[in-house]
Amino acid sequence: MAIAEKFGFEILHKDAHTNARMGVLHTAHGDVPTPVFMPVGTAGAVKAISNASLEALDSRLILANTYHLYLRPGHERIAKLGGLHKFMSWDRAILTDSGGYQVFSHRDLRSINEEGVEFRSHIDGSRNLFTPGKVIDIQQALGSDIAMVFDDCTPYPVGHADAEASMELSMRWAKKCHDHWKRRDSGARALFGIVQGSVYPDLRKRSAEALLTMGFPGVAIGGLSVGEPKDVMYEVVETTAPLLGWDQPRYLMGVGTPEDLVRCIAMGIDMFDCVLPTRNARNGCLFTSQGRILIKNAVYADDEGPLDPECRCPTCNRYSRAYLRHLFLAGEHLSAVYNTIHNLTFYLDMMRKIREAIELDFFDNWLELMEKRDE
Amino acid sequence: MAIAEKFGFEILHKDAHTNARMGVLHTAHGDVPTPVFMPVGTAGAVKAISNASLEALDSRLILANTYHLYLRPGHERIAKLGGLHKFMSWDRAILTDSGGYQVFSHRDLRSINEEGVEFRSHIDGSRNLFTPGKVIDIQQALGSDIAMVFDDCTPYPVGHADAEASMELSMRWAKKCHDHWKRRDSGARALFGIVQGSVYPDLRKRSAEALLTMGFPGVAIGGLSVGEPKDVMYEVVETTAPLLGWDQPRYLMGVGTPEDLVRCIAMGIDMFDCVLPTRNARNGCLFTSQGRILIKNAVYADDEGPLDPECRCPTCNRYSRAYLRHLFLAGEHLSAVYNTIHNLTFYLDMMRKIREAIELDFFDNWLELMEKRDE
Repeated sequence: MAIAEKFGFEILHKDAHTNARMGVLHTAHGDVPTPVFMPVGTAGAVKAISNASLEALDSRLILANTYHLYLRPGHERIAKLGGLHKFMSWDRAILTDSGGYQVFSHRDLRSINEEGVEFRSHIDGSRNLFTPGKVIDIQQALGSDIAMVFDDCTPYPVGHADAEASMELSMRWAKKCHDHWKRRDSGARALFGIVQGSVYPDLRKRSAEALLTMGFPGVAIGGLSVGEPKDVMYEVVETTAPLLGWDQPRYLMGVGTPEDLVRCIAMGIDMFDCVLPTRNARNGCLFTSQGRILIKNAVYADDEGPLDPECRCPTCNRYSRAYLRHLFLAGEHLSAVYNTIHNLTFYLDMMRKIREAIELDFFDNWLELMEKRDE
Repeated sequence: MAIAEKFGFEILHKDAHTNARMGVLHTAHGDVPTPVFMPVGTAGAVKAISNASLEALDSRLILANTYHLYLRPGHERIAKLGGLHKFMSWDRAILTDSGGYQVFSHRDLRSINEEGVEFRSHIDGSRNLFTPGKVIDIQQALGSDIAMVFDDCTPYPVGHADAEASMELSMRWAKKCHDHWKRRDSGARALFGIVQGSVYPDLRKRSAEALLTMGFPGVAIGGLSVGEPKDVMYEVVETTAPLLGWDQPRYLMGVGTPEDLVRCIAMGIDMFDCVLPTRNARNGCLFTSQGRILIKNAVYADDEGPLDPECRCPTCNRYSRAYLRHLFLAGEHLSAVYNTIHNLTFYLDMMRKIREAIELDFFDNWLELMEKRDE
């Protein structure tokens, strides 16, 4: 696996008919072809799938959550044990989020001011303070290949004035993170900025420009998938993506369904993460080439066929829908294991096919396909 | 894999210093070297370990529970889907218990008479009746390679008179099972008898003789591991084993710890099943060459070493104690997955080494080793 001394991003092909780009991230833990979907490894483990299985799926980049790892087992412990890659025995690339979204999710447990966010641990109720500098320190202790700035994830719905104040706070924090990061990193790893501004085009524009001025090697669109209607989300992505630097990777945080991925790739997004394939797998909701399947449904009780006849994952290769339904209803651990392998295979195979389609300039066919499909 | 047209058992070597035997079961789903430990696949799946991993461990014979499969998804459904092997995609050997023990475990939900046992489902409260004939029908529908007679698992402690009545009922049921089985099976599969009689040597003797007269191709010792002291269990096994046919495999049901296995193999037992390695794995209790480890203990928080330096399982090959402790405390599915692979590797490796030791006449060393070890 290619090991880059400096983090970098190359666009290898621009689709002829959409804004989609096919490229590669160069990291100290290997190259990552883009567009890429990152499985979510909240606590230093992608739920219910072994590292060996992730490697077999050729997953090159996973996401881990700073907030969770900070609380348990603690970033200092992980640093002492050689960093997150060594701790979880994963020598491919890792992106860590900044904890902003988790702190946002536990609203009743937090208080926010210029300095940062004070919050209570959801595990033991202890008081903790996240500041821009602290969040950078934590991510540097973890040693992730891509770190994210600490941001204030603006809730939805929100008025223009509140969205503006929140975005401006995020930009001041982004600057602090950027300055703190530069003092400590040689360029082997990357710190990404995060555009905020809720659903307001003027705020998104100001946020994107502020980040461009600071000069991040990659930029994310944050503050989406927080309850806004789907068409609003698409509109924000469509108007924001062109405002980000052409040469930097663009990451849409926390999105989404297969349809979301296709549409947002067409708008020029390169990176995605979402708990959907893994969480749905545990809940028995499976993605297939024929649409979604709720495996608990009685219609599958005597179904000897594979989950998805077009899939070649270990689950589809070996087990019937009837057996997978049985495992789910019996509450077997293996239900989560087999379902997760399938759903991640579906996502990663889709991304692989999309990269090929972009390279060959027929990615626009995918957009049409998605519109026909019941997602 | 060798496929036997008729079920059979060969003793390949008798240990020079103990009553241990090394042999092989011939089944329609492959040969099974003995002494053998059978992982427990309650609901048609060994909990938290994939079939692929079981195959990699060279597990040749697993146990499935008639009671559980009867209730969910139902033996008729499994038969319609091609039998248990096909349903769970396992083409190696399967032994099914008779449900006697599960019915015994749910005492408050059952009533017993000469005909059989009426019990309420632990899933939906529905009324069900197990009779000897019904239990044979269920196991034949499942298509297991080794089936067990329906027995009345005598509780402990129990007076002589009650133990005698219970044992005699079990023997009448064994005869009914045997007659019912013979009408339907050509010999490709085996039905084993079960010795009862609690802790009373005279009853165990009468039970063993009754089963010998009926002529089963294998016999189990039942009614142990039900709360009796360990030395009582050993005494019953030691006195009962020699009463069973020399040429037939001897199966000690529901036992036990690594120490139990070594001691009972020395008494001439060939087959074991127990939930201990799999259940303990899920509870974070791990078997190692240096004794048991409770992975949640704080002493492992910064321990970079493998669970067991002498083990070469995928878990020990890749993950540290610190990481496995973290997965356990975080409640990750992978904790059960990685721990189960390790514990079953420990059991199956031990059985492999024991078979070699018997073949080379140094198995008595294992007895000494076990006495030194803190189990």
